[in-house]
Amino acid sequence: MTTPHLLVVPVGSSPDVAPLRELADVRVAHPHDPDLPDALATAEGLVVWDGFDVAVERAWETARPQALRWVHTSSAGPDRLLFPALRAHPSRLTCSRGILDADIAEYVLACVLAFLKDLTTTVRRQDEHRWQHRLTRSLAGRRALVVGAGSIGTRTAQLFSALGVDVDGVVRSARPAAPPFGALFGPDALPDVVGDYDLVLVAAPLSPATRGLVGAQVVQRMRPGAVVVNVGRGPVVDEDALLAALRAGRLGGVALDVWSTEPLPADSPWWDTPGALVSPHLAGDSEGFTGRLELLLHEQVRRFAAGQELLHVVDKEHGYAITSTVAP
Amino acid sequence: MTTPHLLVVPVGSSPDVAPLRELADVRVAHPHDPDLPDALATAEGLVVWDGFDVAVERAWETARPQALRWVHTSSAGPDRLLFPALRAHPSRLTCSRGILDADIAEYVLACVLAFLKDLTTTVRRQDEHRWQHRLTRSLAGRRALVVGAGSIGTRTAQLFSALGVDVDGVVRSARPAAPPFGALFGPDALPDVVGDYDLVLVAAPLSPATRGLVGAQVVQRMRPGAVVVNVGRGPVVDEDALLAALRAGRLGGVALDVWSTEPLPADSPWWDTPGALVSPHLAGDSEGFTGRLELLLHEQVRRFAAGQELLHVVDKEHGYAITSTVAP
Repeated sequence: MTTPHLLVVPVGSSPDVAPLRELADVRVAHPHDPDLPDALATAEGLVVWDGFDVAVERAWETARPQALRWVHTSSAGPDRLLFPALRAHPSRLTCSRGILDADIAEYVLACVLAFLKDLTTTVRRQDEHRWQHRLTRSLAGRRALVVGAGSIGTRTAQLFSALGVDVDGVVRSARPAAPPFGALFGPDALPDVVGDYDLVLVAAPLSPATRGLVGAQVVQRMRPGAVVVNVGRGPVVDEDALLAALRAGRLGGVALDVWSTEPLPADSPWWDTPGALVSPHLAGDSEGFTGRLELLLHEQVRRFAAGQELLHVVDKEHGYAITSTVAP
Repeated sequence: MTTPHLLVVPVGSSPDVAPLRELADVRVAHPHDPDLPDALATAEGLVVWDGFDVAVERAWETARPQALRWVHTSSAGPDRLLFPALRAHPSRLTCSRGILDADIAEYVLACVLAFLKDLTTTVRRQDEHRWQHRLTRSLAGRRALVVGAGSIGTRTAQLFSALGVDVDGVVRSARPAAPPFGALFGPDALPDVVGDYDLVLVAAPLSPATRGLVGAQVVQRMRPGAVVVNVGRGPVVDEDALLAALRAGRLGGVALDVWSTEPLPADSPWWDTPGALVSPHLAGDSEGFTGRLELLLHEQVRRFAAGQELLHVVDKEHGYAITSTVAP
């Protein structure tokens, strides 16, 4: 067993690196630390934690890392790390697949129920001290389409299915479906089938194949009153088309937790659009999620130091981990 | 087959009585119609629709109905109809048990998820154009206590159980439990066990045994951060004790859809209490619920005219229907 050189770059918060020091020679450098290129030049493993900073890409260009064999991100979706030099580098990239699935699925359900039960209006009427009876809508018996049936999408489908919703999915290419999915379509079918669903739940990673997948034509063909939730990545949907459809009264609600530009600018028209639910990329961030991300990191470092197979290796071409391995 | 005299009293909206005219001699009188006592004096069946008005009780005192054999309410809980003269009368009372179960259970879930995922804050931050990341909480793995394990409570328990929540219940007297309940306690156990639960979901009918059941002592013994939802009847809980606990920061959220006084007065402190979700008795009122209530009414009138057993007969002593018959 070797003791590899591990560089940890805390972009937002920092992981607890103390337990990692028993497994690796750990160095910590923040994105704007002048030592970052130096540290990267000799690192064998790189951990980018809690977000991404373009300073990492710039340091990479300076450092031209030779010894690097592994890069890990605390994100479920590795899209922001996939800058050209990293994509071309022979090191393996792993992501934190699976950790956030259950919480994100619950969040999608929370948003859908908030619209169907009109809780967003309830909160606003409450602030006006106004008792105003309204009719609500049922969830059971509805039809849902999950766009992106990976680990988050599958968990989402399981929850909705357990509540009496018929769920189909959209995946990289059409294939025979198994529960919780009734059918699995390829992306090309999306414009033709989207009108059959009351709920369109987007949980796709960002990749060349998913960018703009829920585009203007798809939005136009949605069922009147459809509810849309995006917990994948902002650029997977056409935000302008959704906004226009919502403002035209053609949709029953749009909840976006991820955005093309984050944070959403204060002058965005989304904030004030009736039927929009604007949240700050928090769907998966539940109390305790950092601990679970750290456990996965520890297991990855243990495997890396022991020369064992890593979990959740990203297919750099497709832009996400296609392993179905569940995190320890 | 006789053609019984049926009196329909629309308190709020009116049911469609046209289909009933094929089964009965139908007369319609609104609560403040001067003919109401006359109509009641000769009615064999009485339908009180969409609420209750004390004018019905006063007309009853004047009319002293002799021919009356059946009273039906469109409510799931017949408590407001159970005035002393009706309670003492030999006529059978039936209620609209079962119709609202699925929607109310979904509503309870919506409220719980709104608190755990902090959507009430999200709505308010959105109105301020404010992007503010916060941590959310998980639902799966929590423990829920359903107070009142009748048809609504059981349906609620099924939904939560399907989402990975461990659910116990409180019923009229302790008995061996079957799924979705892990345990079923009697009301006396409530103060001792309530501290074991993250979620306290009240779906009990109002009766002498349930009035004040979730009292000050029970509220005091709730787990710090517990979420409370009441979709039963207002007086089942001690609203003042809940308000005080919420304001003291001891609870994670209180959603009340039913109130001791409805509508909730505009100067109630509840409207402005952080962590309170105030809704206007709408949990069961989904699009299409009136149609389902009318279908049940039609079936009841058919049975009444044919001399067959009625559905959902209320035990006037306990104050709710104890049949487990599911509505047609």
